[in-house]
Amino acid sequence: MKRILGIDPGSQRTGWGVVESTGSRCTYVASGVVDLRKVDGLANKLGHLSSEIELVLREYKPSAVTVESVFHGKNAKSALVLGQARGAVLAILGRASMDYIELSPAEIKLNVAGHGRAGKEQVAQMVERLLKIKLKGPADEFDALAIAIAGSAVVATSTREWMTKHGLG
Amino acid sequence: MKRILGIDPGSQRTGWGVVESTGSRCTYVASGVVDLRKVDGLANKLGHLSSEIELVLREYKPSAVTVESVFHGKNAKSALVLGQARGAVLAILGRASMDYIELSPAEIKLNVAGHGRAGKEQVAQMVERLLKIKLKGPADEFDALAIAIAGSAVVATSTREWMTKHGLG
Repeated sequence: MKRILGIDPGSQRTGWGVVESTGSRCTYVASGVVDLRKVDGLANKLGHLSSEIELVLREYKPSAVTVESVFHGKNAKSALVLGQARGAVLAILGRASMDYIELSPAEIKLNVAGHGRAGKEQVAQMVERLLKIKLKGPADEFDALAIAIAGSAVVATSTREWMTKHGLG
Repeated sequence: MKRILGIDPGSQRTGWGVVESTGSRCTYVASGVVDLRKVDGLANKLGHLSSEIELVLREYKPSAVTVESVFHGKNAKSALVLGQARGAVLAILGRASMDYIELSPAEIKLNVAGHGRAGKEQVAQMVERLLKIKLKGPADEFDALAIAIAGSAVVATSTREWMTKHGLG
Protein backbone atom coordinates (compact mmCIF):
# COMPACT_ATOMS: atom_id res chain seq x y z
CA MET A 1 0.00 0.00 0.00
CA LYS A 2 1.25 3.45 -0.99
CA ARG A 3 -0.02 6.77 0.25
CA ILE A 4 0.37 9.60 -2.27
CA LEU A 5 -0.09 13.33 -1.71
CA GLY A 6 -0.95 15.42 -4.77
CA ILE A 7 -0.37 19.18 -4.62
CA ASP A 8 -1.59 21.87 -7.02
CA PRO A 9 0.36 25.01 -5.95
CA GLY A 10 -1.13 28.42 -6.67
CA SER A 11 -0.41 31.97 -5.51
CA GLN A 12 -3.96 32.36 -4.14
CA ARG A 13 -5.17 28.81 -3.52
CA THR A 14 -3.23 25.57 -3.26
CA GLY A 15 -5.16 22.32 -3.46
CA TRP A 16 -3.92 19.13 -1.81
CA GLY A 17 -5.26 15.58 -1.79
CA VAL A 18 -4.14 12.28 -0.29
CA VAL A 19 -5.00 8.87 -1.77
CA GLU A 20 -3.96 5.33 -0.92
CA SER A 21 -3.31 2.78 -3.64
CA THR A 22 -3.15 -0.99 -3.48
CA GLY A 23 -2.33 -2.39 -6.90
CA SER A 24 -4.45 -0.39 -9.32
CA ARG A 25 -7.13 0.52 -6.74
CA CYS A 26 -7.16 4.00 -5.26
CA THR A 27 -9.03 5.13 -2.14
CA TYR A 28 -9.67 8.62 -0.79
CA VAL A 29 -7.90 9.65 2.44
CA ALA A 30 -8.21 13.44 2.72
CA SER A 31 -8.11 16.68 0.73
CA GLY A 32 -8.27 20.42 1.24
CA VAL A 33 -7.32 23.86 0.02
CA VAL A 34 -4.85 26.35 1.50
CA ASP A 35 -6.47 29.73 0.84
CA LEU A 36 -4.01 32.63 0.94
CA ARG A 37 -6.43 35.37 -0.08
CA LYS A 38 -7.06 36.44 3.51
CA VAL A 39 -3.36 36.49 4.52
CA ASP A 40 -1.65 39.89 4.18
CA GLY A 41 1.78 40.31 2.63
CA LEU A 42 3.71 38.07 0.24
CA ALA A 43 6.15 36.61 2.80
CA ASN A 44 3.28 35.86 5.23
CA LYS A 45 1.24 34.21 2.45
CA LEU A 46 4.16 31.98 1.43
CA GLY A 47 5.03 31.26 5.06
CA HIS A 48 1.44 30.17 5.73
CA LEU A 49 1.47 27.94 2.63
CA SER A 50 4.76 26.37 3.76
CA SER A 51 3.43 25.71 7.31
CA GLU A 52 0.14 24.24 6.07
CA ILE A 53 1.85 21.82 3.66
CA GLU A 54 4.22 20.81 6.46
CA LEU A 55 1.17 20.03 8.64
CA VAL A 56 -0.34 17.89 5.85
CA LEU A 57 2.96 15.97 5.53
CA ARG A 58 3.07 15.38 9.30
CA GLU A 59 -0.57 14.38 9.61
CA TYR A 60 -0.90 12.08 6.59
CA LYS A 61 2.70 10.83 6.24
CA PRO A 62 2.61 10.19 2.46
CA SER A 63 5.22 7.87 0.92
CA ALA A 64 5.54 10.12 -2.15
CA VAL A 65 4.36 13.51 -3.38
CA THR A 66 3.26 14.45 -6.88
CA VAL A 67 3.22 18.03 -8.20
CA GLU A 68 2.05 19.19 -11.62
CA SER A 69 4.85 20.46 -13.85
CA VAL A 70 4.45 23.96 -15.23
CA PHE A 71 3.76 24.98 -18.77
CA HIS A 72 6.25 27.75 -19.59
CA GLY A 73 4.00 29.54 -22.08
CA LYS A 74 2.58 31.90 -19.43
CA ASN A 75 3.86 35.45 -19.22
CA ALA A 76 6.84 36.33 -17.04
CA LYS A 77 4.83 38.05 -14.30
CA SER A 78 2.43 35.14 -13.73
CA ALA A 79 5.34 32.67 -14.00
CA LEU A 80 7.15 34.56 -11.22
CA VAL A 81 4.07 34.58 -8.98
CA LEU A 82 3.38 30.87 -9.56
CA GLY A 83 7.10 30.12 -9.14
CA GLN A 84 7.04 31.71 -5.68
CA ALA A 85 4.18 29.46 -4.53
CA ARG A 86 5.90 26.39 -6.02
CA GLY A 87 9.16 27.39 -4.32
CA ALA A 88 7.50 27.59 -0.90
CA VAL A 89 5.94 24.12 -1.42
CA LEU A 90 8.97 22.38 -2.97
CA ALA A 91 11.32 23.75 -0.29
CA ILE A 92 9.25 22.13 2.45
CA LEU A 93 9.20 18.83 0.51
CA GLY A 94 12.99 19.05 0.22
CA ARG A 95 13.35 19.80 3.93
CA ALA A 96 11.17 16.77 4.75
CA SER A 97 13.30 14.60 2.38
CA MET A 98 10.10 13.57 0.55
CA ASP A 99 10.21 11.62 -2.70
CA TYR A 100 8.82 13.97 -5.28
CA ILE A 101 7.41 13.22 -8.75
CA GLU A 102 6.60 15.91 -11.29
CA LEU A 103 3.96 15.04 -13.92
CA SER A 104 2.77 17.09 -16.89
CA PRO A 105 -0.93 18.06 -17.20
CA ALA A 106 -1.22 15.59 -20.13
CA GLU A 107 0.27 12.73 -18.07
CA ILE A 108 -2.18 13.48 -15.25
CA LYS A 109 -5.20 13.54 -17.58
CA LEU A 110 -4.01 10.38 -19.34
CA ASN A 111 -3.69 8.51 -16.04
CA VAL A 112 -7.00 9.71 -14.58
CA ALA A 113 -9.33 10.03 -17.56
CA GLY A 114 -7.69 7.74 -20.12
CA HIS A 115 -6.52 10.40 -22.56
CA GLY A 116 -4.22 13.41 -22.35
CA ARG A 117 -6.68 15.98 -23.66
CA ALA A 118 -9.58 15.36 -21.29
CA GLY A 119 -11.47 18.45 -20.10
CA LYS A 120 -11.63 19.72 -16.49
CA GLU A 121 -15.18 18.40 -16.04
CA GLN A 122 -14.28 14.95 -17.29
CA VAL A 123 -11.26 14.74 -14.97
CA ALA A 124 -13.40 15.83 -11.99
CA GLN A 125 -16.02 13.15 -12.82
CA MET A 126 -13.34 10.47 -13.06
CA VAL A 127 -11.86 11.58 -9.72
CA GLU A 128 -15.31 11.19 -8.10
CA ARG A 129 -15.88 7.82 -9.77
CA LEU A 130 -12.43 6.36 -9.02
CA LEU A 131 -12.43 7.50 -5.38
CA LYS A 132 -16.18 6.88 -4.87
CA ILE A 133 -16.69 10.35 -3.39
CA LYS A 134 -18.80 13.44 -4.00
CA LEU A 135 -16.86 16.65 -3.49
CA LYS A 136 -18.33 20.09 -3.06
CA GLY A 137 -14.91 21.75 -2.76
CA PRO A 138 -13.35 24.09 -5.29
CA ALA A 139 -11.63 22.85 -8.46
CA ASP A 140 -8.19 23.06 -6.77
CA GLU A 141 -9.15 20.11 -4.57
CA PHE A 142 -10.20 17.95 -7.56
CA ASP A 143 -7.02 18.91 -9.39
CA ALA A 144 -4.88 17.90 -6.41
CA LEU A 145 -6.69 14.54 -6.10
CA ALA A 146 -6.24 13.93 -9.85
CA ILE A 147 -2.52 14.67 -9.41
CA ALA A 148 -2.38 12.20 -6.48
CA ILE A 149 -4.20 9.47 -8.48
CA ALA A 150 -1.82 9.94 -11.42
CA GLY A 151 1.14 9.88 -9.02
CA SER A 152 -0.04 6.63 -7.46
CA ALA A 153 -0.32 5.05 -10.95
CA VAL A 154 3.24 6.11 -11.74
CA VAL A 155 4.55 4.82 -8.39
CA ALA A 156 2.69 1.49 -8.92
CA THR A 157 4.13 1.14 -12.45
CA SER A 158 7.66 1.90 -11.25
CA THR A 159 7.29 -0.68 -8.48
CA ARG A 160 5.99 -3.29 -10.95
CA GLU A 161 8.85 -2.51 -13.35
CA TRP A 162 11.31 -2.83 -10.50
CA MET A 163 9.79 -6.16 -9.35
CA THR A 164 9.79 -7.57 -12.90
CA LYS A 165 13.38 -6.47 -13.41
CA HIS A 166 14.41 -8.19 -10.19
CA GLY A 167 12.44 -11.37 -10.94
CA LEU A 168 9.83 -10.73 -8.24
CA GLY A 169 6.82 -9.87 -10.50
CA MET B 1 21.09 50.28 16.28
CA LYS B 2 19.45 48.20 13.58
CA ARG B 3 20.69 44.97 12.11
CA ILE B 4 19.64 44.41 8.50
CA LEU B 5 19.92 41.25 6.42
CA GLY B 6 20.05 41.68 2.64
CA ILE B 7 19.23 38.68 0.43
CA ASP B 8 19.77 38.27 -3.30
CA PRO B 9 17.85 35.08 -4.17
CA GLY B 10 18.94 33.04 -7.20
CA SER B 11 18.20 29.54 -8.47
CA GLN B 12 21.92 28.62 -8.41
CA ARG B 13 23.48 31.00 -5.89
CA THR B 14 21.84 33.16 -3.22
CA GLY B 15 23.93 35.90 -1.65
CA TRP B 16 23.24 37.17 1.87
CA GLY B 17 24.81 39.96 3.91
CA VAL B 18 24.24 41.42 7.37
CA VAL B 19 25.05 45.05 8.31
CA GLU B 20 24.44 47.12 11.42
CA SER B 21 23.45 50.75 11.16
CA THR B 22 23.57 53.53 13.75
CA GLY B 23 22.21 56.74 12.26
CA SER B 24 23.69 56.94 8.77
CA ARG B 25 26.74 54.78 9.59
CA CYS B 26 26.84 51.16 8.44
CA THR B 27 29.17 48.43 9.66
CA TYR B 28 29.82 44.94 8.30
CA VAL B 29 28.63 41.96 10.35
CA ALA B 30 28.74 38.91 8.07
CA SER B 31 28.02 37.71 4.53
CA GLY B 32 28.01 34.56 2.45
CA VAL B 33 26.60 32.65 -0.48
CA VAL B 34 24.29 29.62 -0.51
CA ASP B 35 25.51 27.58 -3.48
CA LEU B 36 22.93 25.13 -4.82
CA ARG B 37 24.90 23.87 -7.79
CA LYS B 38 26.11 20.77 -5.94
CA VAL B 39 22.69 19.84 -4.52
CA ASP B 40 20.71 17.33 -6.63
CA GLY B 41 17.00 17.77 -7.42
CA LEU B 42 14.83 20.88 -7.36
CA ALA B 43 13.05 20.17 -4.04
CA ASN B 44 16.37 19.38 -2.32
CA LYS B 45 17.94 22.57 -3.69
CA LEU B 46 15.07 24.73 -2.46
CA GLY B 47 14.96 22.87 0.86
CA HIS B 48 18.67 23.53 1.37
CA LEU B 49 18.21 27.22 0.51
CA SER B 50 15.32 27.46 2.98
CA SER B 51 17.35 25.77 5.77
CA GLU B 52 20.44 27.91 5.18
CA ILE B 53 18.48 31.19 5.28
CA GLU B 54 16.77 29.98 8.45
CA LEU B 55 20.23 29.39 9.99
CA VAL B 56 21.32 32.93 9.03
CA LEU B 57 18.16 34.36 10.66
CA ARG B 58 18.82 32.36 13.84
CA GLU B 59 22.52 33.18 14.03
CA TYR B 60 22.41 36.92 13.21
CA LYS B 61 18.90 37.83 14.44
CA PRO B 62 18.30 40.76 12.05
CA SER B 63 15.62 43.32 12.90
CA ALA B 64 14.57 43.56 9.24
CA VAL B 65 15.24 41.86 5.92
CA THR B 66 15.57 43.49 2.49
CA VAL B 67 15.12 41.61 -0.78
CA GLU B 68 15.51 43.00 -4.29
CA SER B 69 12.25 43.27 -6.22
CA VAL B 70 12.13 41.53 -9.58
CA PHE B 71 12.07 43.08 -13.00
CA HIS B 72 9.26 41.31 -14.87
CA GLY B 73 10.84 41.71 -18.34
CA LYS B 74 12.55 38.32 -18.19
CA ASN B 75 11.13 35.38 -20.08
CA ALA B 76 8.56 33.10 -18.43
CA LYS B 77 10.95 30.18 -17.90
CA SER B 78 13.61 32.22 -16.06
CA ALA B 79 10.88 34.06 -14.10
CA LEU B 80 9.51 30.69 -12.91
CA VAL B 81 12.96 29.45 -11.87
CA LEU B 82 13.79 32.70 -10.05
CA GLY B 83 10.29 32.75 -8.51
CA GLN B 84 10.90 29.30 -6.99
CA ALA B 85 14.08 30.48 -5.24
CA ARG B 86 12.33 33.66 -4.05
CA GLY B 87 9.38 31.58 -2.81
CA ALA B 88 11.65 29.33 -0.72
CA VAL B 89 13.32 32.42 0.82
CA LEU B 90 10.19 34.52 1.37
CA ALA B 91 8.31 31.58 2.94
CA ILE B 92 10.99 31.20 5.61
CA LEU B 93 10.89 34.97 6.29
CA GLY B 94 7.11 34.72 6.67
CA ARG B 95 7.41 31.73 9.00
CA ALA B 96 9.92 33.67 11.13
CA SER B 97 7.52 36.68 11.19
CA MET B 98 10.37 38.87 9.87
CA ASP B 99 9.77 42.44 8.75
CA TYR B 100 10.47 42.40 5.05
CA ILE B 101 11.24 45.32 2.72
CA GLU B 102 11.35 44.99 -1.07
CA LEU B 103 13.49 47.51 -2.96
CA SER B 104 13.94 47.95 -6.71
CA PRO B 105 17.44 47.66 -8.26
CA ALA B 106 17.31 51.45 -8.92
CA GLU B 107 16.47 52.21 -5.25
CA ILE B 108 19.35 50.00 -4.12
CA LYS B 109 21.85 51.69 -6.48
CA LEU B 110 20.57 55.14 -5.50
CA ASN B 111 21.03 54.40 -1.79
CA VAL B 112 24.46 52.78 -2.12
CA ALA B 113 26.15 54.64 -4.98
CA GLY B 114 24.19 57.90 -5.09
CA HIS B 115 22.40 57.36 -8.39
CA GLY B 116 19.97 54.78 -9.74
CA ARG B 117 21.94 53.84 -12.84
CA ALA B 118 25.28 53.00 -11.22
CA GLY B 119 27.14 50.00 -12.70
CA LYS B 120 27.89 46.71 -10.88
CA GLU B 121 31.57 47.68 -10.37
CA GLN B 122 30.69 51.07 -8.90
CA VAL B 123 28.20 49.53 -6.46
CA ALA B 124 30.80 46.91 -5.39
CA GLN B 125 33.39 49.68 -4.77
CA MET B 126 30.92 51.69 -2.70
CA VAL B 127 30.03 48.58 -0.64
CA GLU B 128 33.74 48.10 0.13
CA ARG B 129 34.23 51.79 0.96
CA LEU B 130 31.09 52.15 3.13
CA LEU B 131 31.72 48.95 5.09
CA LYS B 132 35.55 49.36 5.14
CA ILE B 133 36.07 45.79 3.89
CA LYS B 134 37.79 43.97 1.04
CA LEU B 135 35.75 41.06 -0.28
CA LYS B 136 37.03 38.27 -2.48
CA GLY B 137 33.64 36.57 -2.63
CA PRO B 138 31.44 36.30 -5.73
CA ALA B 139 29.26 39.19 -6.94
CA ASP B 140 26.20 37.70 -5.17
CA GLU B 141 27.77 38.59 -1.82
CA PHE B 142 28.37 42.23 -2.83
CA ASP B 143 24.85 42.45 -4.19
CA ALA B 144 23.40 41.16 -0.93
CA LEU B 145 25.44 43.64 1.12
CA ALA B 146 24.33 46.49 -1.19
CA ILE B 147 20.72 45.37 -0.62
CA ALA B 148 21.33 45.37 3.17
CA ILE B 149 22.91 48.87 3.10
CA ALA B 150 19.98 50.22 1.07
CA GLY B 151 17.56 48.51 3.45
CA SER B 152 19.24 50.07 6.49
CA ALA B 153 18.96 53.53 4.88
CA VAL B 154 15.25 52.98 4.29
CA VAL B 155 14.71 51.72 7.85
CA ALA B 156 16.68 54.74 9.24
CA THR B 157 14.62 57.17 7.12
CA SER B 158 11.34 55.60 8.21
CA THR B 159 12.45 55.79 11.86
CA ARG B 160 13.46 59.47 11.44
CA GLU B 161 10.15 60.22 9.73
CA TRP B 162 8.31 58.51 12.56
CA MET B 163 10.32 60.40 15.23
CA THR B 164 9.79 63.75 13.47
CA LYS B 165 6.10 63.02 13.11
CA HIS B 166 5.84 62.25 16.83
CA GLY B 167 7.93 65.28 17.88
CA LEU B 168 10.94 63.19 18.95
CA GLY B 169 13.40 64.09 16.12
